[in-house]
Amino acid sequence: MIIGVDLGGTRIRAARLDDDLKLLERRETLTLSEQGPDAVIERICEQIQAVWPATGDVQGIGVSSPGPLEPATGVIVSATNLPGWHNVPLGQRLEDRFGVPVYVGNDANVAALAEVARGAARGCKHVIYVTLSTGLGGGIIVDGRLLLGRNGFAAEVGSMMVIEDGQATTWELVAGGPPIAQKARERLIEDETSIMREMVGGDLSKVDAKLVGQAAAQGDALALEIVHRAGYIIGLGMTSLLHLFNPEILVIGGGLSQMGDLLFEPMRAAIHENIIYEGYLTDLRIELAALGEDVALIGGAALVRTQGGLVPLLE
Amino acid sequence: MIIGVDLGGTRIRAARLDDDLKLLERRETLTLSEQGPDAVIERICEQIQAVWPATGDVQGIGVSSPGPLEPATGVIVSATNLPGWHNVPLGQRLEDRFGVPVYVGNDANVAALAEVARGAARGCKHVIYVTLSTGLGGGIIVDGRLLLGRNGFAAEVGSMMVIEDGQATTWELVAGGPPIAQKARERLIEDETSIMREMVGGDLSKVDAKLVGQAAAQGDALALEIVHRAGYIIGLGMTSLLHLFNPEILVIGGGLSQMGDLLFEPMRAAIHENIIYEGYLTDLRIELAALGEDVALIGGAALVRTQGGLVPLLE
Repeated sequence: MIIGVDLGGTRIRAARLDDDLKLLERRETLTLSEQGPDAVIERICEQIQAVWPATGDVQGIGVSSPGPLEPATGVIVSATNLPGWHNVPLGQRLEDRFGVPVYVGNDANVAALAEVARGAARGCKHVIYVTLSTGLGGGIIVDGRLLLGRNGFAAEVGSMMVIEDGQATTWELVAGGPPIAQKARERLIEDETSIMREMVGGDLSKVDAKLVGQAAAQGDALALEIVHRAGYIIGLGMTSLLHLFNPEILVIGGGLSQMGDLLFEPMRAAIHENIIYEGYLTDLRIELAALGEDVALIGGAALVRTQGGLVPLLE
Repeated sequence: MIIGVDLGGTRIRAARLDDDLKLLERRETLTLSEQGPDAVIERICEQIQAVWPATGDVQGIGVSSPGPLEPATGVIVSATNLPGWHNVPLGQRLEDRFGVPVYVGNDANVAALAEVARGAARGCKHVIYVTLSTGLGGGIIVDGRLLLGRNGFAAEVGSMMVIEDGQATTWELVAGGPPIAQKARERLIEDETSIMREMVGGDLSKVDAKLVGQAAAQGDALALEIVHRAGYIIGLGMTSLLHLFNPEILVIGGGLSQMGDLLFEPMRAAIHENIIYEGYLTDLRIELAALGEDVALIGGAALVRTQGGLVPLLE
């Protein structure tokens, strides 16, 4: 048996899985992060206890957490959406409590492992997983192993550098959800024609990336232009990743991916226009993430199976 | 004994090395690439023969070659500076001739391996090697293993995408040697004051990156501005690589690196200004490449020792 834990800003979830990473039982509660790390860790422990097998036979606990974090020590350095979390030794605290090995991984890395174990990239050894959301997160599998780097901070794909209007910025600050919404608001303030204005009843603070996507789906010219530009820039980042990693599959998840071909067509165009050698694209698969809300639980269990990502899932 | 081969556009070199990758004997000849692949391969064989040990006891042959190439099959897909080289099965040809295992690697990857085996990154497991030259080439070591990807096309760092003036281009097309020279020529044509004009006797076609570097070293304002901008953009690319790979060491080689701190100061500034988390820089070493013209021979031998980069050098 393996325990998977999904520590998020809103919810804590825990599950018991079998050795094939099948979910057997699942529990969840609110994170209530405003209560601080000690209270949150206590709530994590309660969820783990609730799914602990009667036999007590547990191989380990795998936790998906926001980062940056240090996989080798299980220390959460800091965490978006978890106020007060600075250098929290989460791994050690759980090991002391439950007496089994605990592996902690950042959420995008854990999701990548999950997609290899049971999702869109099943059985693949060279994988890039990118989640398109508020930020652009990533997890990368190199020859079957999770790319961690020296301290476990690797695969921060959203922080690839971009130059926009002569200024240095990052991929996610140009093509993530908030910049898409921001660009729409700026253009609406300039009085451009768009159904987005009616969709929010004139309250431009309600314009978010999802709404821009909905307007684009209805053929709104301004929304289409903004989504097209975002998709093209997402494609440029994907091209960089193909040149750096030469993967067999690119798995795309996250809320923005629900825009579908409106976003993916310009993304694919950017890749095809800019790839330096066709060999990168031969037999390359580009797929949507296959796992839903259980991705972090399955990935947590996969962390245990791979000793934190250090050994391949496949062997 | 191991045989290392350096296949370049100008010269072919071969060497016999011992198991510690120490050079024992070395031979070289001109490539004369205009004679085509068959003649060049014959000349490679002659050089190998000339350093072959009398005992005949050879573990394998490792070849550093321009790419793209397929390490798994030893096929050179195409090669800059080697006209007529398209899908040449170099590895197989050498295996048929010498009856020992042959490993073929692209020159930047091979140089990275060499720097780990005997150079600036000796003993390191998480390494980024970047050569700053006409192009920007790279070789990346992930947890002791060469990053190859599915087909061996990985680590093309020079082809990370950049947006300049709203247009998609690549890192090396913005910050490599030719764009540095081109920018200087454009500004000189606009009649800007600079000692570069006298240095080339008014013949702007003679302005190259080396000359821009020399003028900058003499305090020329225009040259300094151009070198500073190139260094900053090189630093942005390095920042992306740090975020993606979280290495312990960044090794910098290639002709442009001879500009020294004129280039490295703005490079370091770009890294420090844009790194998303200080943990990436803690104990990070940034070093010049330590191996000179023998880098490809040593790296070729390291290819044999690591079965083409697939097993770590360190174990």
